[in-house]
Amino acid sequence: MRLGRNALEWAYFTELMAKIASQAQDFPQWYQDVVDKADMAQHSKVKGCMIIRPYGYAIWENVQKELDRRIKEADVQNMYFPLFIPQSLLTKEKDHLEGFAPECAVVTHGGGKELGEPLIVRPTSETIMYDSFADWIHSYRDLPLKINQWCNVVRWEMRTRPFLRTTEFLWQEGHTAHATREEAAIEVDRALKMYEDFDRDFLALPVVTGTKSNKETFAGADYTRTTEALAKDGKVIQAGTSHLLGQTFAKTFGIKFQDEKGEMQFAWQTSWGLSTRIIGTLIVCHGDEKGLVLPPKVAPYHVVLIPIYKDEAGQKAVLAALETLKLNLKAAGIRVHFDARDTVTPGFKFNEWELKGVPLRIEVGPRDLEKQEAIVARRDTSEKMPMALSEIVGKIPALLEDIQSGMLARAQENLKAHMSEASTLEDLIKILDETGGFVKAPWGGSEEDEKKMQEKTKATIRVLCEEKAPAGSKCVLTGKDTDTLVLFARAY
Amino acid sequence: MRLGRNALEWAYFTELMAKIASQAQDFPQWYQDVVDKADMAQHSKVKGCMIIRPYGYAIWENVQKELDRRIKEADVQNMYFPLFIPQSLLTKEKDHLEGFAPECAVVTHGGGKELGEPLIVRPTSETIMYDSFADWIHSYRDLPLKINQWCNVVRWEMRTRPFLRTTEFLWQEGHTAHATREEAAIEVDRALKMYEDFDRDFLALPVVTGTKSNKETFAGADYTRTTEALAKDGKVIQAGTSHLLGQTFAKTFGIKFQDEKGEMQFAWQTSWGLSTRIIGTLIVCHGDEKGLVLPPKVAPYHVVLIPIYKDEAGQKAVLAALETLKLNLKAAGIRVHFDARDTVTPGFKFNEWELKGVPLRIEVGPRDLEKQEAIVARRDTSEKMPMALSEIVGKIPALLEDIQSGMLARAQENLKAHMSEASTLEDLIKILDETGGFVKAPWGGSEEDEKKMQEKTKATIRVLCEEKAPAGSKCVLTGKDTDTLVLFARAY
Repeated sequence: MRLGRNALEWAYFTELMAKIASQAQDFPQWYQDVVDKADMAQHSKVKGCMIIRPYGYAIWENVQKELDRRIKEADVQNMYFPLFIPQSLLTKEKDHLEGFAPECAVVTHGGGKELGEPLIVRPTSETIMYDSFADWIHSYRDLPLKINQWCNVVRWEMRTRPFLRTTEFLWQEGHTAHATREEAAIEVDRALKMYEDFDRDFLALPVVTGTKSNKETFAGADYTRTTEALAKDGKVIQAGTSHLLGQTFAKTFGIKFQDEKGEMQFAWQTSWGLSTRIIGTLIVCHGDEKGLVLPPKVAPYHVVLIPIYKDEAGQKAVLAALETLKLNLKAAGIRVHFDARDTVTPGFKFNEWELKGVPLRIEVGPRDLEKQEAIVARRDTSEKMPMALSEIVGKIPALLEDIQSGMLARAQENLKAHMSEASTLEDLIKILDETGGFVKAPWGGSEEDEKKMQEKTKATIRVLCEEKAPAGSKCVLTGKDTDTLVLFARAY
Repeated sequence: MRLGRNALEWAYFTELMAKIASQAQDFPQWYQDVVDKADMAQHSKVKGCMIIRPYGYAIWENVQKELDRRIKEADVQNMYFPLFIPQSLLTKEKDHLEGFAPECAVVTHGGGKELGEPLIVRPTSETIMYDSFADWIHSYRDLPLKINQWCNVVRWEMRTRPFLRTTEFLWQEGHTAHATREEAAIEVDRALKMYEDFDRDFLALPVVTGTKSNKETFAGADYTRTTEALAKDGKVIQAGTSHLLGQTFAKTFGIKFQDEKGEMQFAWQTSWGLSTRIIGTLIVCHGDEKGLVLPPKVAPYHVVLIPIYKDEAGQKAVLAALETLKLNLKAAGIRVHFDARDTVTPGFKFNEWELKGVPLRIEVGPRDLEKQEAIVARRDTSEKMPMALSEIVGKIPALLEDIQSGMLARAQENLKAHMSEASTLEDLIKILDETGGFVKAPWGGSEEDEKKMQEKTKATIRVLCEEKAPAGSKCVLTGKDTDTLVLFARAY
């Protein structure tokens, strides 16, 4: 009989699992436990700032590599602007300032002296970048200008949670300038589609896309488009956003160009960003009672190898076989980790790597070795299958693809199952309480009403729907006639 | 006859070149002009902080990709620590604080309120990292701990120059903890060798390596090892450095572990870093009168394609041929840029891409096309050679390798030609004035004497030599007996 989970291993299992709250019973604590135990991040001594741990950072590196490829494919060039923004630049655009002033970290001293003008640690880089755009853009030939920056930003937050909301976070911010509103609008949608495709094809995350309400629009933008994913607790989480900035900043910073007719025009602008919040999104959207579940494409390791043995002779043979398997998998481009620790039991390892969401676990014990096979276990479905050692390298790529597409399909089903409609406030609240997810409802309220709605339901308008409400529809809050439909949800 | 540089093109050439100072006559202005005109970086409105332009940033991305690969090969894991360091942490280690306090940027306000404790924008991350190391390290089994971070850091600088010395810069900082001094010392040398190999094999930069004098040792370290490259003006520039921190920080932050015998020990630490300064190093070490000269491995583009034509028919044929060539080169993994602009002349393009240091230029005109050839021009040697269009894709990789190794060989010769010896102060100053480079001399002075020496000669001790001075040697400044040899140089 192969070594299974013996009593000792189950004790480890119980001990380890005991440290993770139940996802069904206490989602917020489950989230915190997964972040801690899966080596994703931890709190630092700086309020609201996290330390991103190696496993979490490896996920971010994979996100960066793939998204950066897609950004470059769209002829966007990477640059780097200063961390600091002179206060006088940040205060130039009134709406933008109002949005960000309460969240700013301010440098008042440098090199041992008080500064003549305080410097703001960038909360976002529109103002410092667009001041330069004005120097760079003179003719229609200089357009479109499309740049991107990978960097850290700081927004002073009162209540923080690792990845989901932190004072400092890492992100990319794309900034473009165009000759016409139409071209800028196309860029807004291109960036949005890039995020939507990336979420779906790389992270196995289906998202709802659409335009934000006025209240939720980026400070200084004409409109904001968003990608919204569904978490396992029925709440909704905003991933990447894309803004049409119109000519607001161009007029403030003097970004003017001579058009083909020789007339001076203000440029039309966009900005779009995606941050380390996407790691929190992955956790809340794919995680289960055992912890993290990672889509293979973004997972730091595709496969973890775990040796099982009772005595020294068995150990030697199993380790040698797995070492060979590791090298063969590596050579085939599979990201593999061989967990050869002799300080913990196989059962402990099983659970640790399940908690860390590694897509495939391969176990080999002396009996398996006699048959020249291994047990391959899928993290997403918990399925376990014997596989000939000689066939593993050939079969793994297809299995990883199957996991990736299976995770997407299940997430899509889950999203579909959480799309509801309500025509009364009572129904809407009932749905939010019982199943969560998105609730489509007629809306005809003001920005003030949006705030009232949030107080009553704890839900916000996630996106405006493109389809119109049937004739005779009444706003779910005010009862006013309206033809506007929106999606409400409780959100992170 | 093929289209060469006609009068108009020469006018452009002259105009463009007129904007670049002569390297021989005014090296500092030449440097600034190259940084500006090659689209590397520009000054920002924030004093001492630069904007890294797309071409400069692409070089940094190539540096990152290759160095990160080498860092990971050494089993170092990437992480991310907060940008801010609480003042109380930075002030814990006295020597470290003394070194960095004068250069700190201080955040005093956040979220609209004055902070209870000011936050320092990290000038380097020892203190915030090691505070966590103390939480992570308990047993010899937790060692070695090897982590790395890619990030921005801020050091308030009075006199700045793009890349060479800026208030904010980008870098990687590696930090490790070990059970013994011997293991830590091996890690210091591993990191130093990694930089030396990277400089030589990727950047075609031979470097002098060695240990710094006390005066030049990192604040808080037992010793500092360094890589020093030779610029074209005979000055010397420090590239990556690697520090043995000993137990200084471990004692300050309480980084203790139980060794195999069950006894508590303080950990032994190292840190090592390489920054965007390496881009300035590339410019000053490889540049020539025409501008930048980039080694192929780090160059954003290996090849630029330039069409030459007189009429529309010629234009069509040439553009089509080059478009095909571009796709074939791309498919072969060659980084290629097709400069199809019709707003500037070929001569203008030649000079622009020479200024930007692209290793190979391929020109095709109608006459070339008739012969199914192109002209291939090397940036490093100015050599021009006809090549059959059908052979280009096959021949370019070897040509790029030849450029890479040729640049290294010439840089090695140049370094060798700038290694001198002096036994008197007079000789030493004469060599520094006439040829620059490194001057080996006997040294027996104090840290005070080092400062005096710098005032007299404008040179500093770059490294201590491992070889001993012959018996009877006298310190070049104090005349005292000494068996120590050092390398002096005027440095960036």
